[in-house]
Amino acid sequence: MKIFRKKIPLKEALAKVLEGVSPVDVEEVSFSEALGRVLAADVRANRDVPPFDRAAMDGYAVRAEDTFGATPESPVRLRLSKSVREGECVPVQTGEPLPEGGDAVLMLEFTRRLGDGVEVLKPVTPGKNVSFRGEDVRQGDVVLRAGRKLRPHDVGMLAAIRQRIVRVYKKPKVGIISTGDELLDPLTDEPQPLRIFDSNSYMLAALVEEAGGTPLGLGIVRDEAGREGLKNAILEGLAKSDVLLVSGGSSVGERDFLADALTRLGELLFHGVALRPGEPAGFALVGVIRKPVFMLPGFPVATVAAFEMLVRPALQKMQGMPPVERKSVLARAKRKIPSELGRTDFVRVKLEFEAAGVYAVPIRTSGAGVLSSMTKADGFVLVHEEKEGIEKEELVKVFLV
Amino acid sequence: MKIFRKKIPLKEALAKVLEGVSPVDVEEVSFSEALGRVLAADVRANRDVPPFDRAAMDGYAVRAEDTFGATPESPVRLRLSKSVREGECVPVQTGEPLPEGGDAVLMLEFTRRLGDGVEVLKPVTPGKNVSFRGEDVRQGDVVLRAGRKLRPHDVGMLAAIRQRIVRVYKKPKVGIISTGDELLDPLTDEPQPLRIFDSNSYMLAALVEEAGGTPLGLGIVRDEAGREGLKNAILEGLAKSDVLLVSGGSSVGERDFLADALTRLGELLFHGVALRPGEPAGFALVGVIRKPVFMLPGFPVATVAAFEMLVRPALQKMQGMPPVERKSVLARAKRKIPSELGRTDFVRVKLEFEAAGVYAVPIRTSGAGVLSSMTKADGFVLVHEEKEGIEKEELVKVFLV
Repeated sequence: MKIFRKKIPLKEALAKVLEGVSPVDVEEVSFSEALGRVLAADVRANRDVPPFDRAAMDGYAVRAEDTFGATPESPVRLRLSKSVREGECVPVQTGEPLPEGGDAVLMLEFTRRLGDGVEVLKPVTPGKNVSFRGEDVRQGDVVLRAGRKLRPHDVGMLAAIRQRIVRVYKKPKVGIISTGDELLDPLTDEPQPLRIFDSNSYMLAALVEEAGGTPLGLGIVRDEAGREGLKNAILEGLAKSDVLLVSGGSSVGERDFLADALTRLGELLFHGVALRPGEPAGFALVGVIRKPVFMLPGFPVATVAAFEMLVRPALQKMQGMPPVERKSVLARAKRKIPSELGRTDFVRVKLEFEAAGVYAVPIRTSGAGVLSSMTKADGFVLVHEEKEGIEKEELVKVFLV
Repeated sequence: MKIFRKKIPLKEALAKVLEGVSPVDVEEVSFSEALGRVLAADVRANRDVPPFDRAAMDGYAVRAEDTFGATPESPVRLRLSKSVREGECVPVQTGEPLPEGGDAVLMLEFTRRLGDGVEVLKPVTPGKNVSFRGEDVRQGDVVLRAGRKLRPHDVGMLAAIRQRIVRVYKKPKVGIISTGDELLDPLTDEPQPLRIFDSNSYMLAALVEEAGGTPLGLGIVRDEAGREGLKNAILEGLAKSDVLLVSGGSSVGERDFLADALTRLGELLFHGVALRPGEPAGFALVGVIRKPVFMLPGFPVATVAAFEMLVRPALQKMQGMPPVERKSVLARAKRKIPSELGRTDFVRVKLEFEAAGVYAVPIRTSGAGVLSSMTKADGFVLVHEEKEGIEKEELVKVFLV
């Protein structure tokens, strides 16, 4: 039994993964369908926004110089008109084009209407309450950079500059296989003694979706399929996918089957990472085009840890994104969190908000098989390999889930 | 011109909105399609997870008492067998059912294989390295509570307990109308002088999608439609939607048209909020079934602010969620942020990471029409109505976008 495989540091594992994956192809989509997609090229404005000078307030368009010296005691009188010539003003509403000849907008509350004229009670300076052409965006400006995951406001910006089509990375197709004789498919199988329902396939599909990929559930491969069956499942899965996630059977036999199959089909770059949970994770490049395959642990929390640490960064790179951390908050450790030098620990925590500040409370029942430690968690803390643990009250970064 | 409408405090506006909206209907979906949906009922486990005692490590299943007193110098010898009787052990791999008779798992590294037997170098206590039946979840436990927005790990949990169908709130259907003679549809219209492309409709659709609703773009209503046309557009929109967002034309005439139409069709609960930007926001309940309609400002940043402060909480309640804040970080204000008592300011900021900590830097070009102030922002800071502003170096909460 080859149990004591070499575990490599997480950093090294991640470096091999990122070296092994490349951005997927690019496609063109309507801006209106682009939310959450990643830009493959900078977007430059092909027009000024706004395309004309406009009023930023409700009031009167004026020549600022006509208002100089106005006070409530000695107001300046302007004639209402259609355009703004000397001594004239034009009523204007927020967002409307600034009438010709005007260079400022006088707010309504600093005026008094008087017959066919207006009394100005306070002067304005030129440009006051005017939103100038190009104030938001100038023609030629880069408004959104390649590598950006588009947010709702970005979609609004693309509409504003009428960028109908955007070049984005395709969503990586991620094949998902579970292996293990003990597994039943919760969608199709009935309960059986000494068998468990496969949670990894469905959880990984959801994680992939959240990370911007398209999950392809490829089902369960059992021991009876044999080495050939597993090899074929991998090759068939890879034919449909940009990357394959194979979450591992429980038994060493199954794990070795998989490592063996990947070694025969390509290059197994590592198998075993100094990550807890998540140690059995591995990574291979298969075939002449070296398609990436992840070996993920059978226990669900271990699979989550390996996904967060290795697969999510890979999916980001495949989508042309720079590395982006999960959103995080700083909190104090409510208890000491023991760890070991040379190993990265993935610790599920709840947040508690106390008068003294935010605390990260490690969840006690925390075996790699205890998925409820993940559903109960607000986030996770990483204890990096150069640390022996985290002291009580120490400030830690909690990555929010 | 009815410009100086009464502005109500944001808190009061929000209270009226939350009182005016109710959770939408419930539907049943497969757990595998439930990511991001909100549970309408608690989910209880209908089985133990794991459903049997299992090994938490690779090694040998033993009776713990047989190992007592074992040391490297005087190891205890156990016979390999198929079940665990006195003096026997059974090889077992992580995740496999614990063989009958065993009550602990001895890690491989504390043993030495010797012919048909095993030398034990270290004792184990009963229960060691065993993951007991129900350790993760016990039958009858509530594993996920009503009101929870389902995360990837929750989907995994639903698979693990084989909860095939879950009751979730329907996705609220959100109709979106833009009003304004100056607007062109970027998907279908060509540029015209003194016209701008409608960004609100597409940005609101994306915001709604992000917030868990289903957006229905209902196009642009122009002044030429008249009061009747606007009224009909509202009624037709409401017939297809659970809630309607009408983002406002630039001119006071248009705004009054809308307020007028809503007053005729139902009850206009407020029009004008002490929120900057976002002041022209309003809220009405229309028809005998009092369907909610939001009036949103024409300027895009004002619409974003009103959406974040009023519409997002409404969509949460409509989906049966408790109020959930955006994720946030604490940062120090890089500059003084002036505001006014009695008004809530929605201030776009960038985050800067310095040795001294995280700083929130207000974005300078910040008119309500300057959408790039949103696309450049990492988040926003709220200056609440009871504050006159934020001092330089003051600690603020930055809501991340």
